[in-house]
Amino acid sequence: MRSEGVCIPVLARKRLSVPLAAAAMIALCAPALAQTIIPSDNDKSMMRGFPPAPDKIVTRMNQLEQPRLHWSLTHMRMLLPTASIGRGSTVSALPRGPQIEVPSFVDSAGAKYDFGAWMQRTHTDALLVLHDGEIVFEGYADDVDPSSPHTMQSATKSVTGVAAAILIDEGKIDPNAPVARYIPELVHTAWGTATIQQALDMTTSLEYSENPKDPNSDLMKHYSVASGTFPPPPGYGGPRNLYELLAGIQASGKHGEGFTYKTPNPEVIAWVIARVTGKRPSEFVSERLWAKLGTEQDAYVSVDPAGAEMMGGGMSATARDLARFGEMLRLGGRYNGQQIVSAAVADEMFKGGDRRKFAKDPLRHDMVGYSYHDFWWVPPTPGVTEALGAFGQHIHINRGARTVIVKFSSAAIGPGYDEAKRLDPLGFAAIDALYTH
Amino acid sequence: MRSEGVCIPVLARKRLSVPLAAAAMIALCAPALAQTIIPSDNDKSMMRGFPPAPDKIVTRMNQLEQPRLHWSLTHMRMLLPTASIGRGSTVSALPRGPQIEVPSFVDSAGAKYDFGAWMQRTHTDALLVLHDGEIVFEGYADDVDPSSPHTMQSATKSVTGVAAAILIDEGKIDPNAPVARYIPELVHTAWGTATIQQALDMTTSLEYSENPKDPNSDLMKHYSVASGTFPPPPGYGGPRNLYELLAGIQASGKHGEGFTYKTPNPEVIAWVIARVTGKRPSEFVSERLWAKLGTEQDAYVSVDPAGAEMMGGGMSATARDLARFGEMLRLGGRYNGQQIVSAAVADEMFKGGDRRKFAKDPLRHDMVGYSYHDFWWVPPTPGVTEALGAFGQHIHINRGARTVIVKFSSAAIGPGYDEAKRLDPLGFAAIDALYTH
Repeated sequence: MRSEGVCIPVLARKRLSVPLAAAAMIALCAPALAQTIIPSDNDKSMMRGFPPAPDKIVTRMNQLEQPRLHWSLTHMRMLLPTASIGRGSTVSALPRGPQIEVPSFVDSAGAKYDFGAWMQRTHTDALLVLHDGEIVFEGYADDVDPSSPHTMQSATKSVTGVAAAILIDEGKIDPNAPVARYIPELVHTAWGTATIQQALDMTTSLEYSENPKDPNSDLMKHYSVASGTFPPPPGYGGPRNLYELLAGIQASGKHGEGFTYKTPNPEVIAWVIARVTGKRPSEFVSERLWAKLGTEQDAYVSVDPAGAEMMGGGMSATARDLARFGEMLRLGGRYNGQQIVSAAVADEMFKGGDRRKFAKDPLRHDMVGYSYHDFWWVPPTPGVTEALGAFGQHIHINRGARTVIVKFSSAAIGPGYDEAKRLDPLGFAAIDALYTH
Repeated sequence: MRSEGVCIPVLARKRLSVPLAAAAMIALCAPALAQTIIPSDNDKSMMRGFPPAPDKIVTRMNQLEQPRLHWSLTHMRMLLPTASIGRGSTVSALPRGPQIEVPSFVDSAGAKYDFGAWMQRTHTDALLVLHDGEIVFEGYADDVDPSSPHTMQSATKSVTGVAAAILIDEGKIDPNAPVARYIPELVHTAWGTATIQQALDMTTSLEYSENPKDPNSDLMKHYSVASGTFPPPPGYGGPRNLYELLAGIQASGKHGEGFTYKTPNPEVIAWVIARVTGKRPSEFVSERLWAKLGTEQDAYVSVDPAGAEMMGGGMSATARDLARFGEMLRLGGRYNGQQIVSAAVADEMFKGGDRRKFAKDPLRHDMVGYSYHDFWWVPPTPGVTEALGAFGQHIHINRGARTVIVKFSSAAIGPGYDEAKRLDPLGFAAIDALYTH
């Protein structure tokens, strides 16, 4: 109902049979204007019916438990208060090019995956591939509304990183200054000594544990409540909003020595953006990015109980609009007829950080050769950068292959999540390979 | 930043001095493209700063307390979970006509009001006047974002009424059938015997008290929690979602005898709409109204803890988009190049109900000659109909004067609210009078 320009009515979408020989892809994607329906095993009974059955009601408390996760990730604004990240007055074209034919590919153990099985086994909600700015593949799970924003989880951080880089490029933030120069309230915390750049590169040393698999980690026990994601449990005595959380985090050692991925860093950077610009991060992102990109839909970000926006993981956006964002960065900041960010800002997102510092993180031993910079994950292949979010959210940009891949997924924490994390890069490599031989 | 088509950048808005001689209006409104800034005494310190001071934080609990009300009414989605009511792919034009010059007017006691003072004393957040489909006045308080939806409160009910009338017109709902024919779960409640039309006309007889000034009324104690507006207080034992609330309301007498305004009626009708169409009310309203009207912005509606949409009072929309909605009804359903609702549906909203039944309600003795039908308030002047919401929300449509007036306000319950309720109709009459002599 809200299709725009080249967007295709849901009824025109083609169902993709599984397992699928790669050779069949072209036929399935014809006519060139069709969207593919990605097969899925999503539980479609959640929040259905008027009223839903009691065990089918998704709440803030149970939103991440299976089988509710998929519904939550695709309906975040129905669970949490949010702020709009407004689109602009015009929509930029996303032309459609020759549809891709992705060959089967093998994993390191020699197991073979065809493209359809890959999408299904990685619990894909949406997959959109741009090549040279043209849509060469676009597919959605059959219960996913292409015009309704999907959670980005920690891929939100990468938007926050670009926003900060704009202000650094304009001389409004000094990356080498301690965070507390901009937020004096934080002078007696870890960020009293940590610099803006250390926060952006996650080389701060924080007395804060971040492990989504550990219910007693600060992430699951405190950040989840302070951000408004979970309601405070009975007897809760921890921080009740993001400011309280951040103001209570001390340094655990020397900053700048190693990479340790901790979500309070982007939340602190969002606070700096708000303080420096006098605007909510959502307003700044709307004015400087979303409106200029010619996005099709308003994006949004969840807000904490004090109205702070969860810029470490709370954004939702559509695949098409994140593809526009990625394409703008691929093209050195020039998109939709204007220079949206400077070439220096765009290029910065591909630079990466110190690989030795990154390799010190035992949680990232599967990401060989990667580094992290300005809240972007940078693999060893030059000209490639990635935004990543929990449960399989991706923006993958490859300047060499001239591709942008956006993938939304609902891979629940557990064996399926680990498999998806292993398989996702294989699919991206197979797509990029179509354009790099 | 999100201005559209004929929408004017905020910087071009003109400040309106107060008190204002009516003769100055033309000059202030020139150039023809300017928006007026309406003077206000809004507390602008709420939720400002990063972080806001503790006493400046607006929460679900304190949202309706002063001085927080204005912020809440203009930022509802930052307090509550919501569902989107999506716009369509194109925006309909709202051309600008000759700007109005409203003369001073007097109340029944002979007190004189000029237009600017009227807007200020009725705590106006937004005022938009269409004549023959052209914008002849458009003003916003200086802290109101014209592109950001404003709460409609009970004016939401009137959208619900049009949605139900569409389905009645199409033969999908029988207005004379008991509500329980469509919602068997309600067979042992008041709606087991009350008809659809009795619910739409508020002539059901419900064991349920609705008085916003009484904190012990069912409205403030139960509906407010069941709808998700307020968090449940400690020890709360009442209904926790709208379904539970509705399923527990019994008849208090014979239906159809008198008008008594009770918000569970539109919530029950929303349930019928969902059951009959298989869609959320937000989806139905988007597809059948918002997308076709060519609205500029997505609207939204708050959702209860079980995901039900609060179609008795939870919508937020922009003044321009409600003006489009009103203009469509004024024109017999034809707008934006298409017949959006049938002429019969549009005309029904002007018909009104039984004035004798209306006059039985002691709470409405100030609305002489009015009646109520399909969730619209119909004054004695033929060809006029109104949607009304708490704190001063209005859609006023006058076929004779060929006007549509949308007014959003932040008039808190108390003496100021009573004054606003007395003055609002005087302003509308003064505007209509410009086009009816």
